Amino acid sequence: MSNVIQDRRISSLLESYQRVRNFTEKIISPLTAEDCMVQSMDDVSPTRWHIAHTTWFFETFVLNQDEGYDCFDPQFNYLFNSYYNSIGKQFPRPQRGFVSRPGLDSIKKYRAYVDSQMAELLAVEDLDPKLQQVIEVGLHHEQQHQELMLTDIKHVLSCNPTMPEYHGNDLDSTGTASNEWIDIASGNYGIGHTENVFCFDNELPHHKTYIHNCQVSKDLVTCGQFIDFIESGGYQRPEHWLSLGWSTVCDLGWDAPLYWTKIGEHWHTFTLCGLQPVNPKWPVSHVSYFEADAFARWSGLRLPTEFEWEVASQLDESERAKGQFADTLLDMQKAVHPTKSSSSLFGGNWQWTSSSYAAYPGYQPPAGAIGEYNGKFMCNQYVLRGGSVATSSDHIRGTYRNFFPPESRWQFSGFRLARSR
Amino acid sequence: MSNVIQDRRISSLLESYQRVRNFTEKIISPLTAEDCMVQSMDDVSPTRWHIAHTTWFFETFVLNQDEGYDCFDPQFNYLFNSYYNSIGKQFPRPQRGFVSRPGLDSIKKYRAYVDSQMAELLAVEDLDPKLQQVIEVGLHHEQQHQELMLTDIKHVLSCNPTMPEYHGNDLDSTGTASNEWIDIASGNYGIGHTENVFCFDNELPHHKTYIHNCQVSKDLVTCGQFIDFIESGGYQRPEHWLSLGWSTVCDLGWDAPLYWTKIGEHWHTFTLCGLQPVNPKWPVSHVSYFEADAFARWSGLRLPTEFEWEVASQLDESERAKGQFADTLLDMQKAVHPTKSSSSLFGGNWQWTSSSYAAYPGYQPPAGAIGEYNGKFMCNQYVLRGGSVATSSDHIRGTYRNFFPPESRWQFSGFRLARSR
Amino acid sequence: MSNVIQDRRISSLLESYQRVRNFTEKIISPLTAEDCMVQSMDDVSPTRWHIAHTTWFFETFVLNQDEGYDCFDPQFNYLFNSYYNSIGKQFPRPQRGFVSRPGLDSIKKYRAYVDSQMAELLAVEDLDPKLQQVIEVGLHHEQQHQELMLTDIKHVLSCNPTMPEYHGNDLDSTGTASNEWIDIASGNYGIGHTENVFCFDNELPHHKTYIHNCQVSKDLVTCGQFIDFIESGGYQRPEHWLSLGWSTVCDLGWDAPLYWTKIGEHWHTFTLCGLQPVNPKWPVSHVSYFEADAFARWSGLRLPTEFEWEVASQLDESERAKGQFADTLLDMQKAVHPTKSSSSLFGGNWQWTSSSYAAYPGYQPPAGAIGEYNGKFMCNQYVLRGGSVATSSDHIRGTYRNFFPPESRWQFSGFRLARSR
Amino acid sequence: MSNVIQDRRISSLLESYQRVRNFTEKIISPLTAEDCMVQSMDDVSPTRWHIAHTTWFFETFVLNQDEGYDCFDPQFNYLFNSYYNSIGKQFPRPQRGFVSRPGLDSIKKYRAYVDSQMAELLAVEDLDPKLQQVIEVGLHHEQQHQELMLTDIKHVLSCNPTMPEYHGNDLDSTGTASNEWIDIASGNYGIGHTENVFCFDNELPHHKTYIHNCQVSKDLVTCGQFIDFIESGGYQRPEHWLSLGWSTVCDLGWDAPLYWTKIGEHWHTFTLCGLQPVNPKWPVSHVSYFEADAFARWSGLRLPTEFEWEVASQLDESERAKGQFADTLLDMQKAVHPTKSSSSLFGGNWQWTSSSYAAYPGYQPPAGAIGEYNGKFMCNQYVLRGGSVATSSDHIRGTYRNFFPPESRWQFSGFRLARSR
Repeated sequence: MSNVIQDRRISSLLESYQRVRNFTEKIISPLTAEDCMVQSMDDVSPTRWHIAHTTWFFETFVLNQDEGYDCFDPQFNYLFNSYYNSIGKQFPRPQRGFVSRPGLDSIKKYRAYVDSQMAELLAVEDLDPKLQQVIEVGLHHEQQHQELMLTDIKHVLSCNPTMPEYHGNDLDSTGTASNEWIDIASGNYGIGHTENVFCFDNELPHHKTYIHNCQVSKDLVTCGQFIDFIESGGYQRPEHWLSLGWSTVCDLGWDAPLYWTKIGEHWHTFTLCGLQPVNPKWPVSHVSYFEADAFARWSGLRLPTEFEWEVASQLDESERAKGQFADTLLDMQKAVHPTKSSSSLFGGNWQWTSSSYAAYPGYQPPAGAIGEYNGKFMCNQYVLRGGSVATSSDHIRGTYRNFFPPESRWQFSGFRLARSR
Repeated sequence: MSNVIQDRRISSLLESYQRVRNFTEKIISPLTAEDCMVQSMDDVSPTRWHIAHTTWFFETFVLNQDEGYDCFDPQFNYLFNSYYNSIGKQFPRPQRGFVSRPGLDSIKKYRAYVDSQMAELLAVEDLDPKLQQVIEVGLHHEQQHQELMLTDIKHVLSCNPTMPEYHGNDLDSTGTASNEWIDIASGNYGIGHTENVFCFDNELPHHKTYIHNCQVSKDLVTCGQFIDFIESGGYQRPEHWLSLGWSTVCDLGWDAPLYWTKIGEHWHTFTLCGLQPVNPKWPVSHVSYFEADAFARWSGLRLPTEFEWEVASQLDESERAKGQFADTLLDMQKAVHPTKSSSSLFGGNWQWTSSSYAAYPGYQPPAGAIGEYNGKFMCNQYVLRGGSVATSSDHIRGTYRNFFPPESRWQFSGFRLARSR
Repeated sequence: MSNVIQDRRISSLLESYQRVRNFTEKIISPLTAEDCMVQSMDDVSPTRWHIAHTTWFFETFVLNQDEGYDCFDPQFNYLFNSYYNSIGKQFPRPQRGFVSRPGLDSIKKYRAYVDSQMAELLAVEDLDPKLQQVIEVGLHHEQQHQELMLTDIKHVLSCNPTMPEYHGNDLDSTGTASNEWIDIASGNYGIGHTENVFCFDNELPHHKTYIHNCQVSKDLVTCGQFIDFIESGGYQRPEHWLSLGWSTVCDLGWDAPLYWTKIGEHWHTFTLCGLQPVNPKWPVSHVSYFEADAFARWSGLRLPTEFEWEVASQLDESERAKGQFADTLLDMQKAVHPTKSSSSLFGGNWQWTSSSYAAYPGYQPPAGAIGEYNGKFMCNQYVLRGGSVATSSDHIRGTYRNFFPPESRWQFSGFRLARSR
Repeated sequence: MSNVIQDRRISSLLESYQRVRNFTEKIISPLTAEDCMVQSMDDVSPTRWHIAHTTWFFETFVLNQDEGYDCFDPQFNYLFNSYYNSIGKQFPRPQRGFVSRPGLDSIKKYRAYVDSQMAELLAVEDLDPKLQQVIEVGLHHEQQHQELMLTDIKHVLSCNPTMPEYHGNDLDSTGTASNEWIDIASGNYGIGHTENVFCFDNELPHHKTYIHNCQVSKDLVTCGQFIDFIESGGYQRPEHWLSLGWSTVCDLGWDAPLYWTKIGEHWHTFTLCGLQPVNPKWPVSHVSYFEADAFARWSGLRLPTEFEWEVASQLDESERAKGQFADTLLDMQKAVHPTKSSSSLFGGNWQWTSSSYAAYPGYQPPAGAIGEYNGKFMCNQYVLRGGSVATSSDHIRGTYRNFFPPESRWQFSGFRLARSR
């Protein structure tokens, strides 16, 4: 959505296109057409919708720019638009699970049709740089939906009392906490994107911000630590909670992270490889901002701001390669589940920060429909950083800003702690 | 649920079993596995659930009575129980659409397994008369679900903006209104079931009731008449409505029967054969009790009581054969849609009566789980009589009592008028 | 609303007017202007609204018929109309408690003004019989609101954690159950009003109905019996409940009648004379239709129909004088609370019947606004018979039909049992 | 809540106490006991509750610290606690309007009792500095509730269709827009409180922050400008709105600021002196964050951050005296309504900033119950600065942080614009 990649050849954009699109196929391969139908809550979209919508993106913003393009099916524009008001009316989101036709077979034909048209387009030598940019946005957009496919299908399967597996492979081995802190000294720091590669509009412009002396933990908070919080009565004591968090706990009857259930004396959690006993060394996942904040208060510490997080990532890039990401896990036949609390700032769990999602100074949304991508969501959401086991490894970077409402828990969301000095 | 059928041979019960079960297959044949997944509102169940639940009925109440029976899958008991508290906990009804596994293929295997076990059982010469009774209940239960499959899938497809057809065949030809009335003279009449064939518990006991002089129309109210009501401002004037009906009209924004939409100057309606122009001669369908009652007040008449309706059916059995029923329509490759306003008291549309659904004097629900079939629903529901185009012709009778809450509209529900003399 | 009272002189209508209006003053005398402001739930109206609305009735339907009448304040028509759509728009019911002006003082002036105008009118010798009829309706209407004032203020005070008393007087002495039954033999009986005195439109026309052999208990079900039901797990077992009743129990967390609370081992109940220990001999009160029906199933019996009740009252008029009524209780400085389980079919508690509220055969609502009085509520309500401690003794009769939705509990509502023979 | 006021004598604290407490009396003087009962929405508290709760604060946090103190009424602790979980259970907020006893008379006695006890305490020469601090918090707390009394009673009276006045005096004269901007140059600035006078915990600690080149308007946006937004279709076009703002507009049917209504061609607004024609020169008030943000986007500008606002106030203190405040308006017999768009950054309207309400770096909530004052509300709220016509002039300062959810509109909330350079 930003700097054009001048030095990258057209052929490599085609390669990127095919690699990203193929990974979507890999993700859906364990699923039946019926699995792909389900919308288990308003936040979740049916897998079939994700597959169609990511295709719709290329058809609408790339192929349709050519007047000679022969649209696959005009009804799809209404069915598979997500929230782009400038493109037209959208089919109501909570009813996405009611649409059984076109069938998954037709959606796959739609996908193949658009892919063949895109391949033709990407074979052109002097492709308009603006179109190249939009295609790159489309690929990153699809990678975001790949993450949602994994988190959404996890939620879908969790609603099935038979607790089915998405895929039945081994869990990655578990790491050990480092108990170390990253020191940040007071001063003005640069925040936001600068490199000559892709980023989203919300990472711009690069700008100065003042940070105060602090430390950010190298470790994610673990399941074992979180069980201590639970057992100390954490979910019963309003003093640990934001006012809105406490009313959420009471209204929804929360007493543990999402997907956790106690069998006898032992906590278990539903995972993409079925119900598993909770390992105390794993980083805790599927907690809301409210739970992360309550734990931090209870422990006498706090969450980092997104700026502290970003500076910490600038200071400690070394560990990055050790993160857990969707592409490597699936390649290794490992289950998509975070098991390492201290590998890296990146991968494993998204990490809640204390920063409300807002525009950077001087931010300008792009013109046109693509401008609806980020800016209009800057209200009542909190920033998460670092990526998760459901993120692709080439999709994440230190300036990347994810965001969700403070009560959301169906993403792979954990947290690390910070303290002022 | 009542009189044992002594004179019917076991072999004929097997024939009945196979005929009814085969008709379910016929109903689902135009549907994909994805169509069978959708629950478009809480009242609607996914088709796959109907198929599994009707099978569960035979497994639970018949096959499981034999200790040696080898259960197909113990998890199905929880998944496919509807509302029998005495059988155990039920999976929450509004989440039936979230369950994609077992897949439709497995459900069909379940069905085949139970059918083969049932065939074995029904081959036994001296089958316990109590079991015979339960099997007969199960067949009538399945016929009720066959009707729901048709009305539910109609609702499901109506939520799809592409307006798909269930099957694309011809509509039955349209009849003419008779403008005649059936006279009923004051006196005590017998109400309820007496014959030596199957009936549900709510049709018993046969009992005397006093009827006052009145007339019941031979015709169903037509779409043309209902358009007159609409165009006279019927949906805008509270004086025509029950207080609860008026608040429903305002809250839900009703301005026409369910599935109706105005295109330019002309009313159209979604049908099982797609969107069709409304024919003024058709009986109006998919109206609630509130709309039927409002129309009746507006026209200076009233709805018949269920007792008046039943006596009228005793006096005018002659026309019964002319009704429109699911089995004959599907056999003739006709669309399942009511088009004849005056054929018969039976078939076409269910007909709202002014009678709240209540127990007959001396009513006793059967012991055990089967006793949960009818009695516990006797509150805030109104009785409909006569059957519809989605009913099987051998499922209906003059004493049959259907019932729905007064705001329900997704059944094929119309009405006929009455007047006191 | 029916038979004109030919033999009653104008002067006696004035006397009736003044007696009824004065009783309203008596009811509100223990209350502050602030008490009279509160609307503690949508069903409840502020006392001040009742006082104004009953006055509005006479202004609108009597005084305003004279073109020369000088309206007290034209804004009151909108403020104090309840639900008469034909009179004009109504102020939204759930916001009645938001209106602090006019103050209670002004409302009392309004009341005095209308009373003086009415006194002038009633002094006329040859008052139009139609007007006389409307005035009589207005007096019965005010008596209905007097009952609501008592039940509404009870609910209001119950929401105050300081548990204030309405008035602090003695409870009436407690009677003893008779354990007797009233026998009714099969046959056609006359139902509905015939006498040459006032009745509401819903009691007409008098008509024949067939009753089957049965018995109706002379006693109301007592608190002691109801405690047995509670302690047997009555509120935990779905098999005792109507399906809709069970979902109400679960949704609202009911575990006892309204106003009951357990302190240590003992049930207490909030009354108009404050919190009191439950006396096992008292008739149980403030139960819904659902609870009455569940108790009846649990005990192997059933509720009577309203027709059985009415016939029983024809057969057993002897005990009527012994009932507990609002006027006698307040005259005797006794608290308004039912304490006698067997005094009479009348007074004490309203008694749920199993009859859905419906029109009698041949029923015609009166023309004009008064026609909105009863007919439009004939849906999803159940009939109660007999009157309560909050009813005036001259307001009740054997044909009187009260009605409430099956989940309502804030009236003095109990029940008696019946059985078929 | 911060720096002790060493140089202020005890006697002056008593004077402050009496001045603030007396102003509460002045505010309620035009109201009846009935007016003081009403809770017109969950956000609003009855005036009587504010009067009691501000008194409860002194009783609980000051007088009760002395073991010998004789509590006025122990039940008041439960009734008049707002949200201090550490003090005990609270009476449910949405039911505050249900409590008619104690009556206003008793609450006034409670107030007088506590005042006399406080006067005794404040007469002591060497009052514990910690107690002095808590008393000072209590006075600022009462001033906050004074503002709420005015905004809440405005909402209460607006629900009354007779549109009553709070007081019927003249509106202040209208000023003229300056069309000027305050320039801010890039650099690190000090934010937060430093002076040796009272502030709330959320204004601390004073800390450095980096600001980028920008300009902040000297004028508040006017009603005339806002009418342009409305007439350009502002409320119909999703492209101007945050996603959450647009769904709020659609759900609540907003088409103008709160209290606005169009009569013929002209906009009117309900004010504390009744319904008034909207004056285009007035600053627009009673808009939500969503509306302020939408207007800013529509005009190509943006809202300032709270840091930009605070720096602007440091640069432009000169105009401060010209603001419109509650105490001066009531002293001058003027209506409490904002009429000057350019007087000052302070007074008139609270001004939405684009800053989510969050802790300053190094923020620590005070220990004990007082620590529940601010920190737990730091989620999904936006900061407003500057004070309003309902604020007391000695209550506001440049570092003061008010906060409300983005959909709130019942405060006197307007906005000024900013732009990056």
